[in-house]
Amino acid sequence: MMRSGDDHLHPNETQRIEAFSDGVFAIAITLLIIEIAVPHVTGGESLSSALGDLWPSFGAYVLSFVMIGIYWANHHSFFRLFVRTDHYFLILNVFFLMAIAFLPFPTAVLGEYLNNAGHRDAAVRLYALGLLLPAFGWLAVWVYANARGLVEERLAPEYVRFLTAQYLLSNVLYAGALMLSFLDAWVALTIVVGLTLLYLLPPRRPRYAG
Amino acid sequence: MMRSGDDHLHPNETQRIEAFSDGVFAIAITLLIIEIAVPHVTGGESLSSALGDLWPSFGAYVLSFVMIGIYWANHHSFFRLFVRTDHYFLILNVFFLMAIAFLPFPTAVLGEYLNNAGHRDAAVRLYALGLLLPAFGWLAVWVYANARGLVEERLAPEYVRFLTAQYLLSNVLYAGALMLSFLDAWVALTIVVGLTLLYLLPPRRPRYAG
Amino acid sequence: MMRSGDDHLHPNETQRIEAFSDGVFAIAITLLIIEIAVPHVTGGESLSSALGDLWPSFGAYVLSFVMIGIYWANHHSFFRLFVRTDHYFLILNVFFLMAIAFLPFPTAVLGEYLNNAGHRDAAVRLYALGLLLPAFGWLAVWVYANARGLVEERLAPEYVRFLTAQYLLSNVLYAGALMLSFLDAWVALTIVVGLTLLYLLPPRRPRYAG
Amino acid sequence: MMRSGDDHLHPNETQRIEAFSDGVFAIAITLLIIEIAVPHVTGGESLSSALGDLWPSFGAYVLSFVMIGIYWANHHSFFRLFVRTDHYFLILNVFFLMAIAFLPFPTAVLGEYLNNAGHRDAAVRLYALGLLLPAFGWLAVWVYANARGLVEERLAPEYVRFLTAQYLLSNVLYAGALMLSFLDAWVALTIVVGLTLLYLLPPRRPRYAG
Repeated sequence: MMRSGDDHLHPNETQRIEAFSDGVFAIAITLLIIEIAVPHVTGGESLSSALGDLWPSFGAYVLSFVMIGIYWANHHSFFRLFVRTDHYFLILNVFFLMAIAFLPFPTAVLGEYLNNAGHRDAAVRLYALGLLLPAFGWLAVWVYANARGLVEERLAPEYVRFLTAQYLLSNVLYAGALMLSFLDAWVALTIVVGLTLLYLLPPRRPRYAG
Repeated sequence: MMRSGDDHLHPNETQRIEAFSDGVFAIAITLLIIEIAVPHVTGGESLSSALGDLWPSFGAYVLSFVMIGIYWANHHSFFRLFVRTDHYFLILNVFFLMAIAFLPFPTAVLGEYLNNAGHRDAAVRLYALGLLLPAFGWLAVWVYANARGLVEERLAPEYVRFLTAQYLLSNVLYAGALMLSFLDAWVALTIVVGLTLLYLLPPRRPRYAG
Repeated sequence: MMRSGDDHLHPNETQRIEAFSDGVFAIAITLLIIEIAVPHVTGGESLSSALGDLWPSFGAYVLSFVMIGIYWANHHSFFRLFVRTDHYFLILNVFFLMAIAFLPFPTAVLGEYLNNAGHRDAAVRLYALGLLLPAFGWLAVWVYANARGLVEERLAPEYVRFLTAQYLLSNVLYAGALMLSFLDAWVALTIVVGLTLLYLLPPRRPRYAG
Repeated sequence: MMRSGDDHLHPNETQRIEAFSDGVFAIAITLLIIEIAVPHVTGGESLSSALGDLWPSFGAYVLSFVMIGIYWANHHSFFRLFVRTDHYFLILNVFFLMAIAFLPFPTAVLGEYLNNAGHRDAAVRLYALGLLLPAFGWLAVWVYANARGLVEERLAPEYVRFLTAQYLLSNVLYAGALMLSFLDAWVALTIVVGLTLLYLLPPRRPRYAG
């Protein structure tokens, strides 16, 4: 006998995906610091100035910490709009988490090479890509969930369209930053930082039809 | 006075084993990125090409991330079929988790040596072993749980046999990939990647007798 | 239709912020050990004495472990006084966690350079800063929560004032240790260690108006 | 107004200490693999033999993974015997966790130097110390909890005495292994491994007075 309705797992499923995702967010955000190595000071060099020279690493740490923090808050707020799950939804969420867990690497590369004129462009390019990947992953989760009817039906259609537009725009802007990094790394980085500041603003509350 | 029925711990036990296992899955999956070191570029070399040279590491990262993600999803789906636990079940689960937590090491070795003709075979061999170990661990958990009556009794016998066969087959295929890596590393790797893609398909739903 | 009362999220919100924060505390505290590298002993050197030479690293490990442990206990005890949350409260908590997650770095620097007369001052300075940051972050969370009415109303006003004074004092003392490290690193470190011992005493229990 | 009965926190307290402790266990156990570095093979050396040379690291990984797994299972089983908590109980638990979180370091040292005749003794000594510390920490938690009446009153006194004796014996045996490592590292290691195998046996079930 096949259980009926098994195509859509029961609501608890979204809770366990959330718990696992929260674990990945918490670990990725806390691992960021591991990528900053203790400077090895030799001879007459001063530790103070060696620590000061790490400013690109500290900056990249702050930027990525805030980004993962925002994704965590966002994932939580909007996961509650998903009232059902299915197998491919779960798989897409794993791919989204893969992009989040990848962030410590571009962060470390940015910290290492931001202050290096010869390699700054490549480092910023990788970092913009590192932010485009989770933005794209999240867009994929959202579009799939809508196409498969996993999203709370009572949501106002215009609110759903607003979110879709917002996620698309994020992708366009990160892709733009990626392109611009071929021309000017600082302009590309400004877009990335600006977007992060923008995301610190409160998200628009869910609106319901009716 | 000895509590009766203590041989089989109460149902909450499976929940706490799940919570601990989920922690190990989430940490192992997120630690994978730590194994990819920031390239140290010197002289006239370009950072872009140094990053591009890391493709085996990125590929190994994606492969192992998906594998651990699949094990997590699988562990969760099937753990709910275990309605009782006992001491050795818990121990076997710890050994299974040991194999999961080991994966970042073969992943790092594969990333480092896949593109190195002289050492590729050994790296693929270790990676195939790294995937055989959790497959074997999970088989051991499953066979033990069935032998000791820890599994939901209402499951259809043919469904139980189907799962046993499937877990055995996984072991045979990973062992096969391990053997084949002595002949041709690329063939062995193709089997490993092919199995991973196969596991991305939805698992067969539990069937109940009746 | 906009939901009313959405400005203040429902009580469960504080629980999920706590769960995420607990994850960051648990990871940051456990990552501390990763920063102590296995000594590479060569020639006639003895491993015992090489391990003994790591005493500043072991000391810094103990100090930071206890500090993060205290912050965890404190975060939990007082988070239950927050009965509502809002967006900026969540953001401030992320900044507080950023300061907690940063601690493994100053800890590693302190362990590396405490026994090095030429660089001790800079290492202690960074460590004092590393402790000032979460103290300041927590003060910001507390002051914001009070200003926005997120704190349990039944708390006795004199108890609220006591906590505010205590958090302010912590900031002053860590800032003092930071300043003093320019004059004498050992005096600064003594203040830091003394504060840690003080924090091991039981916190004053919440008092309620009535 | 001071809340009465606040000296003993409510039962939920033990749950949140357990959740935090479980996090530390899960992270410490999963971090063990990070300490095994990918071998750098050069010239005519083979990767297979370089991997084979890592056997002491793999052995130490298995030993420590099983030990932390046992501590996790033990912590959980016996934490449910604590029906109240107080401030110093929480502090002692933090010190116990500090000893657990420290284990990856002696594990890494053992893996690096076990196969090195000149430094084996010191490595085994550190490892025995690394196991003595959590054994001692747990004994302290247990003795304190009994002295302060935090333990379930219905437990049979002879069962409480049995546990106390068992924890004391563990301490004596690890201290013995530590001493013996000055004479013969292999004998000391045999005791450590033997104890681990012994701990894999099912623990004696709680007995209740009545």
